[in-house]
Parts: sequence; structure tokens; C-alpha cells
Amino acid sequence: MMAAGERHGVAGVDRARLLDCLERLARIGADPAGGVTRLGLSAEEGRARAFLREICREAGLVTWTDAAANLFVTRPDRAAGHPVLLIGSHVDTVVQGGRLDGAYGVVAAIEVLRACTASELRLPYEPVVVAFSNEEGALVQYPFWGSRAMCGLLEGGTRARDRTGRSVRAYLAEGDGDPDRLAEAVWEPGSIAAFLELHIEQGPVLERRGVPIGVVAGIVGRTILEIEVLGQAQHAGTTPMQERRDALVAAAEVVLGVRRIAAGLDVCSTATVGYLEAAPNSTNTVPGTARLTAEVRDTDPLRLARGEAAVRAVCERAGRATGCRVVPRVAMRSRPVETDTAIQQVIAEAADELGLAHLAMPSGAGHDAQIVQAVAPVGMIFVPSTAGVSHAPAEDTPAEALAQGADVLLRTVLRLNHPPDRLSRVSGTEPALRR
Amino acid sequence: MMAAGERHGVAGVDRARLLDCLERLARIGADPAGGVTRLGLSAEEGRARAFLREICREAGLVTWTDAAANLFVTRPDRAAGHPVLLIGSHVDTVVQGGRLDGAYGVVAAIEVLRACTASELRLPYEPVVVAFSNEEGALVQYPFWGSRAMCGLLEGGTRARDRTGRSVRAYLAEGDGDPDRLAEAVWEPGSIAAFLELHIEQGPVLERRGVPIGVVAGIVGRTILEIEVLGQAQHAGTTPMQERRDALVAAAEVVLGVRRIAAGLDVCSTATVGYLEAAPNSTNTVPGTARLTAEVRDTDPLRLARGEAAVRAVCERAGRATGCRVVPRVAMRSRPVETDTAIQQVIAEAADELGLAHLAMPSGAGHDAQIVQAVAPVGMIFVPSTAGVSHAPAEDTPAEALAQGADVLLRTVLRLNHPPDRLSRVSGTEPALRR
Repeated sequence: MMAAGERHGVAGVDRARLLDCLERLARIGADPAGGVTRLGLSAEEGRARAFLREICREAGLVTWTDAAANLFVTRPDRAAGHPVLLIGSHVDTVVQGGRLDGAYGVVAAIEVLRACTASELRLPYEPVVVAFSNEEGALVQYPFWGSRAMCGLLEGGTRARDRTGRSVRAYLAEGDGDPDRLAEAVWEPGSIAAFLELHIEQGPVLERRGVPIGVVAGIVGRTILEIEVLGQAQHAGTTPMQERRDALVAAAEVVLGVRRIAAGLDVCSTATVGYLEAAPNSTNTVPGTARLTAEVRDTDPLRLARGEAAVRAVCERAGRATGCRVVPRVAMRSRPVETDTAIQQVIAEAADELGLAHLAMPSGAGHDAQIVQAVAPVGMIFVPSTAGVSHAPAEDTPAEALAQGADVLLRTVLRLNHPPDRLSRVSGTEPALRR
Repeated sequence: MMAAGERHGVAGVDRARLLDCLERLARIGADPAGGVTRLGLSAEEGRARAFLREICREAGLVTWTDAAANLFVTRPDRAAGHPVLLIGSHVDTVVQGGRLDGAYGVVAAIEVLRACTASELRLPYEPVVVAFSNEEGALVQYPFWGSRAMCGLLEGGTRARDRTGRSVRAYLAEGDGDPDRLAEAVWEPGSIAAFLELHIEQGPVLERRGVPIGVVAGIVGRTILEIEVLGQAQHAGTTPMQERRDALVAAAEVVLGVRRIAAGLDVCSTATVGYLEAAPNSTNTVPGTARLTAEVRDTDPLRLARGEAAVRAVCERAGRATGCRVVPRVAMRSRPVETDTAIQQVIAEAADELGLAHLAMPSGAGHDAQIVQAVAPVGMIFVPSTAGVSHAPAEDTPAEALAQGADVLLRTVLRLNHPPDRLSRVSGTEPALRR
């Protein structure tokens, strides 16, 4: 098998350094209860950025953090005016998430940049690494915060808050960002030639089929509904069953109804209630209120819309059955997107060159790439997830597979540059002029 | 209508002072989100005791707090060696509870003691007021903590903890109690002639029937089960529906199944899930674990046992249906108890004397009286709850009804003393010798 980058005179990705960097990054936000809790815009996410800045500084790379707390890394001899080939992912996690989700794509991108830097290669499309902030939205309830900020798509995001009501402004002001200069985080139209994101699959498909590389064809769209349940808090011993308006009973009806939308009725591909809180949440009291979030996903916009309608119908039925008010409102919609077919082809060729089997597949998870797709062509590379587990402490990928994914990323960057007109030709646009 | 106590030369209860004291006590632990949050063994409960000690000191009464953080109040000229007629309730609340639950019975008992003190009455059964600590068990998960300590029935209670794992020892050491001297909180067998507890009904019966006084005939027993759900935390977008082990789905099945036990199947009188927590509780993740509490109540021990068995069956079915482990374990059992029939009769006579209609009824709520019943005859007086609401900010009782209940309590104390042998005669025991 040929080493990645060999044909272009570029040394391959440094596998030991890649794994070591992942290992060290995983210690930042390591959760005593298991896994990594490094929530977007938290102090831990800031410490992760500081760690990466230090790694990059030692490697002679140039870094900066924008007003939205996105970290960027470039080669020191970067040619001004060249369109940018952006590569990266995010460094935040969910609560007790895994060590690879997001982090892998950022650390691998830095290794790719170091490989390109070491060779002093002239690259028409200048590789720039990005670590987007707050992709998960687990703390400040607005996923894809950083990539939306960069693409000028923040919309309601500037009013985002955490579950206690603390504003994104407060988080930015205390952390690496600057809430008053968010406009400066938006990149000029046409300045991004393309965006490449390497990521663990987070599902069981690649491992089960024994295929090391996934070429992502499309990313599911997602609609999140926040659901408020208003019942009546009452004494659990003295209130006759038929006189109760139990908010937790209504919430439980919603949980089971939402599951049925995807599991039994196949309205859309997934439907999940991941968050539920009841109040006063006391053994002795019939719950008076509850809050939950339901999310539905699909690659087909029509099925996605039907999923949302089904959640609303479930809420209405739960309200009627329990005497509670059950009020859903949309907290976020992201539309399904397709990745660039030309970039898909280049990723497949890069895998072929390394003798790695590959599989075209959809992404069931949302990714920053789906946001960036609004302003530039995007491509995504998947590597297998052990047992398909993700967003959990047991999330893992074999070291060999991690190195292979990074090598495919490196080769994809080089192939998009040689010949230099390839990206513009095959994507059917002139990157430098593209919005 | 004759003023309470008139026949015995005792002035009636001071209504304005009763209402004022309730008003001031409600400010301690007033929750910004509504209602009163004055959890058992918390600093707020301690502040409530301090407030009552100050009130009593000003009134010339004698107070002390025992090692279990129970507050006692006696007349200054208390005759030593007389058997005690204990009167009172508790001062802790649930999260966002009401201002009357527990507090009313304590404040009214202090007013009764002041009325007896003012008259310099010789009373064979010495009235002593108690404010039991941690009746609700909302913070340190062991209801009836204080009354159990006084009755020598703490059992596993010395190992009780809050939901974060903080021990009852730590709470006692930091607060009014003394975890190393709990044995000293146990009263001598026979030292309590009887216990009287005045309380709001916490249900809709008295208000609906327009009856001002309830004579409690029995108190429901209660079994609390803590249920642990073990599923698998996974990514909500990438994990196919049929491969999930969603702990929240299993928990929702338990919530609905528990409700059905009492609501549809009538196995026992009430069945409630009041507490539920899922983890990681993040929109983006299939919940991996959940914890909930189910409680069942009934006045019939057999129906109570069937209720517990039904909860276990619900857990088993939920586990089978979802692929999760659903493990119930008993956190507390209290048996149904009957109040003393002689005391019931005296309460009814006291109400008759005041021209107040009364109704014999069960208590759907648990009360300290059910614990004390193991060591002394007990009686309970109910007043109406507006709209039957309790354990909630809207909990209320009209001022007139609160004053009437206190007057009935005063008359009951006096009638149990005159003739002095009445209590021992009608309850068929010699109080001073009773264990």
C-alpha cells in the first residue's frame, strides 16, 4: 500500500502523534462519571482550544480564534488571496460523550496541515483547519453555533441560552469569543473553496460491513421540538386518580408516541426524546409540569416534515388523554443536505489509492458540514464506530482505522489541489467566486 | 357558639396571632418560583425552628431541640412525671410545597399551649408541642425521620442520604441535631399518653361536602419503590430505532403502567411516579439510564401489598419490552394504621361543643401520627383544603376554617384531661404505663 501523500512528495500523517494528541485532548473535560463532558462554549471547550493552540504553536503553525469562539489554524507561509480549503470539525461534546466525536476530525486535520507544511508544498487551495465551537448545543441550546456564525446563518442563535437562562453573550464574554463582534466572524462570500470533515460514523454500518471508509452522500435534516407540559401539582396520596392532571403521565405518553413515529410507523428515520424534566420531581407529589425535547431526522425533507407533524399530533393526543396542556414549539430545524458529488468522487479515489474499501452512505448525525454546505461545496469522510456506539463513554474506533481516515483526508486535500482546477471543474463552480 | 375552652376557664385560641404566625413562617423558605421550599434537615427547616423558638421564648414557654432535630415546647410550670399529651406536626415542606402542610399543625399546637398556659390550668396529661423534623423526606430520602427517631423506629434511617449522596449525619452535624446522640432522642416507653395532630386534609372531600372538621379514622399505608433503569446511551441520529435500549422509553412505560395500577385496575387507592431523572438527558442522545420512584397507597394492607406486586410486574414488562434492565427496590414501607377510637370520639364531641359539623374519614396522606401510633394512641383532626390542592404553591384553607381547627384541637386537649382518667379509660390502657 502506498503511503498517503507519497505521490505528491508529502509525508503521510504521523500516526503516533495523531493518537497521542487524541489521548491528551480526551483528558480535557474527562467526566468522573465516565466519558468526556466538554460542553460547547464552556470553560472545558476553551481549555481544549488552548491545548490545540499550544500544539500548533509548537509545530510552527499560526492560530487565531474568532468572535464566535471558532479556532482556526493555517500554515505560516500561507499565500494570501488563495481560496481556502477548510478542513476540520468541532471539539465540544455532549454530556458524558465520547473522546472521538468531533475531536478526531480536528486533530486529524491538524496532522494533515502539518504533513502539508513539512513538504513546503505549493497548494492553490490553501488548507486551513477549523475547530468549530458548540456543534452539539448541549449547554447553550443552539447546535452548530460556530459553523452558523462563520456562514452568517446565526439567526436566532444570538439569543440562545442554557437551561438556566444564562445567555450565549455571557458565555462568549467570559470565554474566547466576543459577543459584540460576531459580524466579523462571517467569512466573505467565495472565500471558502470547499469544506472537508472527517468524522467517526457514530453508527454500526461500516463496522458491520467491514468497510474502513464511508463516503458521505448526504446528511439527515433534523427538527427539534421543545415541549412544555402544564398539569397540576397535587399531593400524591390525597388526590383521587381520576382528578389528576399529571404532567409526567402526559410526558410519558409523548415519549412513547414519539418513539412509535419512527419505530412502528416509519414516518421518518429516527424520532427520539432525549431530554425530560418534571417538576417538582418529588416522590410525594403528582408532577405539575414537565419539559421535554423531541427530535426527528430524515434525509428526505418531506418525511422530515411528516415526522414533525406526527410529533405535534402525539402532543395533542397526550394532552387530550391527560387533561394537561402539551405545547410543542420548534427549537431548531436543519434541512437535509447532499454533499458535493465531485468531492465524493475525489474521496473515493483517495481511498482507492490507499487500497481501502469505501461505501457511499448517508449520515444519520448532523454535522457542521451541513451548515457550511450553504456557502461552499462540502465532503465528509467516515471511519467505523465500534459497536456503533457514540455520544457515550464507550464510543471508540480502532487506532488503525483512525490513521486510515486521516490518510484519506490528506490524500483528498492533495487530490483537490492537483490538478489545481479540479475542484472548480468538477463541482461546476468557480470556488473563488462562490458564495 | 361557645368559645373554645370556655367551659374549662381557658381562653380560646388567639385567631389573629395564629394567622400572623403562619404568615411569618411561610416567608422562611419562600420559593422564588412559587410556594415554600423548606426541605427537611435543610438550613431553611433550621431557620423555621429558630423562628418558633423565638416566638415561644417571647411567650414564656420552654423549648428544646433533640438530637434528631425535633423541636419541643412545654409550659414553664410543667409538672414533672405527668404523662405527656403530645400535640403538633412538622415544619418541613416538599419542593415548592404549600404554606400550611405541617406548619399549621405546629403553629396551632403552640397557640393551644399558650391558651393552656394563660389559664394556669392543672392538666393531668401535660401538653407538649412537637415540630418533627423531615416528615416529607424530600431532601434526605427518609420520610418521618423525626417521629421515627423519637419512637425508636429509625431502622435504616441512620444511613439515609440525599440524591447527591450526602448523608443524614452531615445534615444533622451541620444543623440542629447530633448524629452521635440519636439514641437520646428516643422517648421512654409509656411517657407519651397520646399524640394529637391537626392538619389540612390535602384532598377535596371536606370542602366538597361543606364540612369544617374531619375526624381521621385511619391513615393509608405507603410503599415507595426506587426503580433503576439501565439501557444504553447512544447517538440519537445514527442508532437505528430497532437497535436502541432507550432507558427513557422504559421509564415512560413504567410511568403509564404505575398509573394504570390505581386508575384503571383499582389494585390500590393511589399509584404515582413523582420523580424521574434520565441521563445523560441531552436532546441528541438516546437516554442510557433513568431513575424513578413509584409509590402506592391504601388503607388495606392486602391491597397495599398487591399494589407493590403490581409495580414490580410493570417493571418487568417494561424491561422485556425495551431491552433495558428495570430494577425496583423498596425504599420505604409504612403500614396502614387506625387512629384511637376513644380519641376519635373526643374530637367529635369537641366539634359538637363548638357547633361544627364533622366527618369520619381516612387520610390519603401519610402523617407523623402513623409513626407515633406504634408507641401511643393517636388522633388526627382535618380542616378543608381549598380545591383539594396540596404539596403545591396554591395550597390554601380559609382563615375561618384554620381557626376552627385550632379551637377543636384546644377543646380536644381539655376534654382528654377532664375528667383526667378519660384518656386511659376510653382507650383501654393506662397511659403512664403504656409503651
